[in-house]
Amino acid sequence: MIRSDSTIPSVLPQIAVSVGDVAGVGPELALKCASLEEVTKICRPVLYGPRPVIERISDVVGHPLSATIVDVGQLDAQTLRPGNFSAQTGRASLDAFDRAIADTVAGETAAVVTGPIQKEAWFLAGSTFPGHTEMIAERLGVDDVCMMLTSQEISCVLATIHLPLADVPKSLTAPAVLKAIELGADAMRRRHQRPARVSVCGLNPHAGENGLMGHGEETSLIRPAILAARDKGIDVRGPLPPDTAFTPAIREQTDVYVCMYHDQGLIPLKALSFDDAVNVTLGLPIVRTSVDHGTAMDLAWQGMANHHSMLAAIQLAVELSRD
Amino acid sequence: MIRSDSTIPSVLPQIAVSVGDVAGVGPELALKCASLEEVTKICRPVLYGPRPVIERISDVVGHPLSATIVDVGQLDAQTLRPGNFSAQTGRASLDAFDRAIADTVAGETAAVVTGPIQKEAWFLAGSTFPGHTEMIAERLGVDDVCMMLTSQEISCVLATIHLPLADVPKSLTAPAVLKAIELGADAMRRRHQRPARVSVCGLNPHAGENGLMGHGEETSLIRPAILAARDKGIDVRGPLPPDTAFTPAIREQTDVYVCMYHDQGLIPLKALSFDDAVNVTLGLPIVRTSVDHGTAMDLAWQGMANHHSMLAAIQLAVELSRD
Repeated sequence: MIRSDSTIPSVLPQIAVSVGDVAGVGPELALKCASLEEVTKICRPVLYGPRPVIERISDVVGHPLSATIVDVGQLDAQTLRPGNFSAQTGRASLDAFDRAIADTVAGETAAVVTGPIQKEAWFLAGSTFPGHTEMIAERLGVDDVCMMLTSQEISCVLATIHLPLADVPKSLTAPAVLKAIELGADAMRRRHQRPARVSVCGLNPHAGENGLMGHGEETSLIRPAILAARDKGIDVRGPLPPDTAFTPAIREQTDVYVCMYHDQGLIPLKALSFDDAVNVTLGLPIVRTSVDHGTAMDLAWQGMANHHSMLAAIQLAVELSRD
Repeated sequence: MIRSDSTIPSVLPQIAVSVGDVAGVGPELALKCASLEEVTKICRPVLYGPRPVIERISDVVGHPLSATIVDVGQLDAQTLRPGNFSAQTGRASLDAFDRAIADTVAGETAAVVTGPIQKEAWFLAGSTFPGHTEMIAERLGVDDVCMMLTSQEISCVLATIHLPLADVPKSLTAPAVLKAIELGADAMRRRHQRPARVSVCGLNPHAGENGLMGHGEETSLIRPAILAARDKGIDVRGPLPPDTAFTPAIREQTDVYVCMYHDQGLIPLKALSFDDAVNVTLGLPIVRTSVDHGTAMDLAWQGMANHHSMLAAIQLAVELSRD
């Protein structure tokens, strides 16, 4: 049960913010954003994590504790040190995320926003999920989720996510590319309230050079997905040579890119963005957004971490949950 | 033999410019740059290509024919149409490049600058080289060349070049990564006249996440190369997570990136650059720079193509040939 606060208008949506690994910068970013007027005028953030640790970080960092907390996770707040992630911090972040998902599915919160987790801590805690995205997909029984990264500059949907580079070509399928095109087009149509323009990258250098380069992935996988998407009325082009796809001229004509692998999308996104990138999981029955950065263990509990990604993640979650 | 022009001071270096595929924009870019004061005050450009075609393009486009031409290639200038590449245009660009290499090796010209070629035309002409870089390496009997792309914003050396993405992980070796570090550090040291700061990217998402992601390439190949380079006194760090390696904070601390595959380096370079990127082949006994764009067949012979990359390629060739 989430505690009600009668002083806040009930019309504002409650947004579940799982604070991430408490040894990292997630809790202080959530605390910071929860007190910003840009946030409090559009939603009621609810922080998911171990209450004693969040309270201690609030003290240490000096960010006020203005948000509701849903207390999840067993941790000794007095012995925990910033940067010192462990099986315990991993378990706490897993449990907080699970609870945030459950409350959102139950309708108690309108969306889930996730702070940064330490994947080694998840691993130490016995989780085999490579990231939030795979875990929420499994929890909600959805096969075809896609990860979209979005910033002021560009938005990218990934056709494959957390894979070793060597495993990308054999894992790529035409249905996955088509799904990424459809989900990206749908999200950006809702966001911009007009049909989205989708640009699809090739897999190989120069998009395979008309078949001279690569093992035919552009011809056998990517082009059929583009044609199928076009048949469904989507404004989509490609496969584009990846190296020129992100130049200013093509960015101007693109609402969302479909990228074949993690770094093909995230390298240009992070090179071009100014700390405001947000990670969105598309294809779920609930809205889930996330910061796009890590736990920054070396900056933890100092109040110095940049909160713009967390702020943008909360704002986008509110926008998408209103649709 | 190159014709002498006694009105130009003999102290200026002669720079061999092979004009690329004559059905594309290469010849007009070479003509344009050859008449710019920024070029004529630092060098004497010598254009390599089929003279009748270059003369016709000069007429059609309206760029004056101010440079010396070394006539290479058999083509019917009257029937050739812009955009209409063929085995004949491919053969002409192959032969012009070969002649430019030979004249530079012989000391008649100080460096080779290459215009854009159409790789399908090379293929039609019977060449099996995937690009200029591999061809010049073979011609000069050098195994360990590296491709460096450089612009005002960033410089990237590639540890592998024109490979299908699926073939990158199995083709990557520690010696190749070390060579890329050494050649990149040496080039930037000469350019900036101080020790270079080198940043090496990982291969996998998140640089392998301490071994959790990927097949150990960071541990088994990349890290040993970094340690070996450090033993040689090079200021080098990594392997960095590729997606955050190109953010402004890390760009500021980096003179040159070492990238594991083509698009890892070229995506951020072209996303961040403003048409001024230059391709340099490192590790050769002669200086060779190139435009970093394609033939732009749809713009050919219209005088509208952007000449900034050709200009920067000529300027860099002059700088490197003075060393």
